Amino acid sequence: MSSALCYNILLHCIYIYIYISNNMILFIHNVISKNPTFQELAVYENMSDQVKISHEELERDGFCQNPFFECLIAEVPEEHKSKEGFTIVGYAFYFYTYSTWKGRSQYLEDLYVMPEFRGNGIGKALLSKVTEVGKNKGCVRLQLSVLNWNTPSLDFYAAKGAQDLTVSEGWHFIRFDGKHLDDLAKGAPKN
Amino acid sequence: MSSALCYNILLHCIYIYIYISNNMILFIHNVISKNPTFQELAVYENMSDQVKISHEELERDGFCQNPFFECLIAEVPEEHKSKEGFTIVGYAFYFYTYSTWKGRSQYLEDLYVMPEFRGNGIGKALLSKVTEVGKNKGCVRLQLSVLNWNTPSLDFYAAKGAQDLTVSEGWHFIRFDGKHLDDLAKGAPKN
Repeated sequence: MSSALCYNILLHCIYIYIYISNNMILFIHNVISKNPTFQELAVYENMSDQVKISHEELERDGFCQNPFFECLIAEVPEEHKSKEGFTIVGYAFYFYTYSTWKGRSQYLEDLYVMPEFRGNGIGKALLSKVTEVGKNKGCVRLQLSVLNWNTPSLDFYAAKGAQDLTVSEGWHFIRFDGKHLDDLAKGAPKN
Repeated sequence: MSSALCYNILLHCIYIYIYISNNMILFIHNVISKNPTFQELAVYENMSDQVKISHEELERDGFCQNPFFECLIAEVPEEHKSKEGFTIVGYAFYFYTYSTWKGRSQYLEDLYVMPEFRGNGIGKALLSKVTEVGKNKGCVRLQLSVLNWNTPSLDFYAAKGAQDLTVSEGWHFIRFDGKHLDDLAKGAPKN
């Protein structure tokens, strides 16, 4: 547990701790791979087929010299542990991006709180903590993506002042992967 | 010039060099701040008001120990220089992101070729080179955002196999900045 980033806060009668830790790797992997309640973050109904990442990859990429991501976790004391025995009950997974107009930015890839712990302000606390970490690093934006049917999330972010840039400015999200990505890379000019 | 990433290629009778270099900083800053032909990448008509970044910030953030971005530039020999005397005629500006399902990814923030050099395959060469760099680093995705009215760019990417995830899956692009970002950060839980 990093003391510099450990916050012990009282939310709706539950003390939670928010911190950066490699304890989160197993939790994230469990949540992403196995937790049926993670479905609302899924694009495909059969989400487990889409998860191609291992615990080892997450650990390697989050704790190397130039980490690909950072993650804050929310932990509750033993006496408040989840029905399944978890004390880590939520996480915010983010990384640093860059705008050629504005400079340093953050991207929030996942914000997750276990259903039985929702309504206690844990999601808001994690989101605020991510922005505080970003502001301390000079970031001027926090961006993320939400599915258009995910009204609870859209409302959650809108209530906190987020702009939906797809609606207001028409930004579309484009992806290359699989064979098309391979073909592009193979077509790269050689000497 | 980094020899490991320098490619000397013949495209439509013009030799171009694609490489990573800090020469690009001044070029990018000129293009972004002053070049009226950069307007197609602008959201706002009065783009110059939106550019808040300095040459020094770009240099600091691109060439620190954990760089926030990387950039490939396309350079032509002196005899092919632009009307305004530039030999650097295009760039691809990207950074590394992360998917909790798939792992290492890339995000292409800008892909730019000067209008007088378009139609020579330089954009495609830069795009391919970015994906090659990413594949060598284990990336499984390249993502980017395009405005819905920017049909030439949407067509350019679609022709190479990109998916428009806003159309196919309903992803919306959400942003916090300015006062709302400050408010979020201020609301972060303290000990």
